Amino acid sequence: MNNFIYDTPTKVYFGKDEEQKVGKLIKEYGAAKVLIHYGGRSAKESGLLDRVKGYLAAENIDYVELGGVVANPELKLVREGIALCRKEGVDFILAVGGGSVLDSSKDIANGAANPEVDVWDFSLGKAAPQKTLPKGAILTLAAAGSEMSNSCVITDTETGSKRGYGSPCNRMNFAIENPELTYTVNAYQTACGAVDIAMHTIERYFCPGEDTYLTDAIAEAVIKSTMKAGRDCIDDPKNYVARANMMWASSLAHNGLTQCGRSFLLTVHQFEHEVSGMYPQVAHGAGLAALWCSWARYVYKANVSRFLQYAHNVWNLDINFEHPEETVEKAIDLQEEYYRSIGMPTNLKELGVKEKDLETLALQCSRGRTRTLDGYRKLGYDEMLDIYKMAYEA
Amino acid sequence: MNNFIYDTPTKVYFGKDEEQKVGKLIKEYGAAKVLIHYGGRSAKESGLLDRVKGYLAAENIDYVELGGVVANPELKLVREGIALCRKEGVDFILAVGGGSVLDSSKDIANGAANPEVDVWDFSLGKAAPQKTLPKGAILTLAAAGSEMSNSCVITDTETGSKRGYGSPCNRMNFAIENPELTYTVNAYQTACGAVDIAMHTIERYFCPGEDTYLTDAIAEAVIKSTMKAGRDCIDDPKNYVARANMMWASSLAHNGLTQCGRSFLLTVHQFEHEVSGMYPQVAHGAGLAALWCSWARYVYKANVSRFLQYAHNVWNLDINFEHPEETVEKAIDLQEEYYRSIGMPTNLKELGVKEKDLETLALQCSRGRTRTLDGYRKLGYDEMLDIYKMAYEA
Repeated sequence: MNNFIYDTPTKVYFGKDEEQKVGKLIKEYGAAKVLIHYGGRSAKESGLLDRVKGYLAAENIDYVELGGVVANPELKLVREGIALCRKEGVDFILAVGGGSVLDSSKDIANGAANPEVDVWDFSLGKAAPQKTLPKGAILTLAAAGSEMSNSCVITDTETGSKRGYGSPCNRMNFAIENPELTYTVNAYQTACGAVDIAMHTIERYFCPGEDTYLTDAIAEAVIKSTMKAGRDCIDDPKNYVARANMMWASSLAHNGLTQCGRSFLLTVHQFEHEVSGMYPQVAHGAGLAALWCSWARYVYKANVSRFLQYAHNVWNLDINFEHPEETVEKAIDLQEEYYRSIGMPTNLKELGVKEKDLETLALQCSRGRTRTLDGYRKLGYDEMLDIYKMAYEA
Repeated sequence: MNNFIYDTPTKVYFGKDEEQKVGKLIKEYGAAKVLIHYGGRSAKESGLLDRVKGYLAAENIDYVELGGVVANPELKLVREGIALCRKEGVDFILAVGGGSVLDSSKDIANGAANPEVDVWDFSLGKAAPQKTLPKGAILTLAAAGSEMSNSCVITDTETGSKRGYGSPCNRMNFAIENPELTYTVNAYQTACGAVDIAMHTIERYFCPGEDTYLTDAIAEAVIKSTMKAGRDCIDDPKNYVARANMMWASSLAHNGLTQCGRSFLLTVHQFEHEVSGMYPQVAHGAGLAALWCSWARYVYKANVSRFLQYAHNVWNLDINFEHPEETVEKAIDLQEEYYRSIGMPTNLKELGVKEKDLETLALQCSRGRTRTLDGYRKLGYDEMLDIYKMAYEA
């Protein structure tokens, strides 16, 4: 078990009607002016945005607003938000939406609080935010886990680069999670969310590390609960229990709990960021579903026993001790079947990725052959290309 | 699933040598003077206390010290600590020890920061702390979970009253958890710790609530991991993996994670507080072990299916669907056997409790017949006496 720091400062208000507290919560920060940041039509059409404005007005809290966040949140809107914060003297950011809105809000908060740095340098790893603005979220989508995570993923559409960075400044001060606000999320987006949530913990589970049996068992609990909840949400979009368990899983899968004592690298996420960076119409969760099984088949022989544990504890498979590889492959097959059963793609072709782009994807993912992603196997440009090819054909 | 607030602000530094950071961590709070609070000989004899003083001195941090915390931390020492803080202008409390030292530190911090209130009123529920001093802990015992919990349990030896209270002010700002610092904990205290840790989550698991399958699965993970780790620590006191998993379980079992969405009441803890309040030589964990199985046998018929889930998921028992009670009773028997196997008592007689005191225990636990503890069954004075009698004879 490796040494670790556990730091989950975000205070979560979970359950029905909790968004009604938002004015009082923001008031605790003594905010002079709030930026309400959101995405497209749904926050408006559902009436949520108007309700939120009402909760702020009831506490005499002044605000400005900025909508328009898209699925892969864009640097140019972040820059617009930073400029607005400076012009208006914003000192609190309220994100109303899903992970994209939250990530955009985080980047705006960091950019606004560190005017001497170009905000894109945070994403590029050239600088780290030293301070930030206080911020809270009303979550309307269970997926990215941004509500409790320390990460923030932004896309520069001019270069097609999608980059994530971690920082203590990326933690929300509070997150309001009312599962009912996700009732209107459609089946496809719900499935993407279930894939993404489980994947945040599956990736941690398959990071190098050992002797973390408590962390492992918690991770298995999160993965299994997410898969069950995801399917139940799709079967019945207004199933409160399923929406609630999925929403809570979203937060726990990515807040650090499931990595305690293990090394940390979200390898398949790195593969996927290149795909949805190049093809902005690709939903992140769908990209992960299309890639994971190929990654798993490519690397599992480097650590069969870890994959056996996964097969046994997550997929409830009896272990074939004479041919353990068969058990592992059966588990990967089951995961692939699960993805298909909830309407997710299991290869890149289905996503519209073109074969001619695979080399570019591998080149980007390897940062021009300068980066390797080292888990159970060292993955450089050549291995990345192998995996992209496998995932294309799968 | 009930609405809930999740708030675990304590920052944990976990692993070998992490205590060396303590001076730098305290420095972040700009403390002028620290109170180092500790227990008996072990912190001194192990050399830890001298090392801690060295880490503070290396950062030019001034300090005073107060030792002498005993197993059930006492109000009179808390009062002494508060007076010392006022006299010396202490603005940060550093607890070096186990749960008793941490609880004593919390109460001192609350008392020192709220001079207009008598500190015992916090324990009696007559007042709630509105502010506190910043505080950190170097943990030397995996048991009470105080390092991340919001609770604090203090005993007034003059009246024999042992009382716990919860408050956001009871959260440590940071906790340093180096499993190696628990290598010298003897087998009996280690067993008491394993019982207490698992019990924090077992009690939450058996609180009323439903549809919390993610929380349930995490709770089962914590309970099973704790039982395994506890036994392994006793078999080999310097087993780092076991000490580490047990220490981390201590924090997660009691920080709120395993109660999300369920109601919250630590019923058997309430029973036990009366026992170790009246018999100060009784270790809290041993008292819990002597009580839990009797409580379980007394109440399980009011919610057989919950106990079946426990039997199946925690004790890996096949369910006897024709006679489900048999499965539940088998699980309780297994838990009793586990307690015996790690040297824990399974009845009150073994602990030295006298039969003539059972009525007084029930009277105290029911606050003079004015309090009931309502879980699956309503437990008033009569039922409490039944359970104390069962636990005496068990």
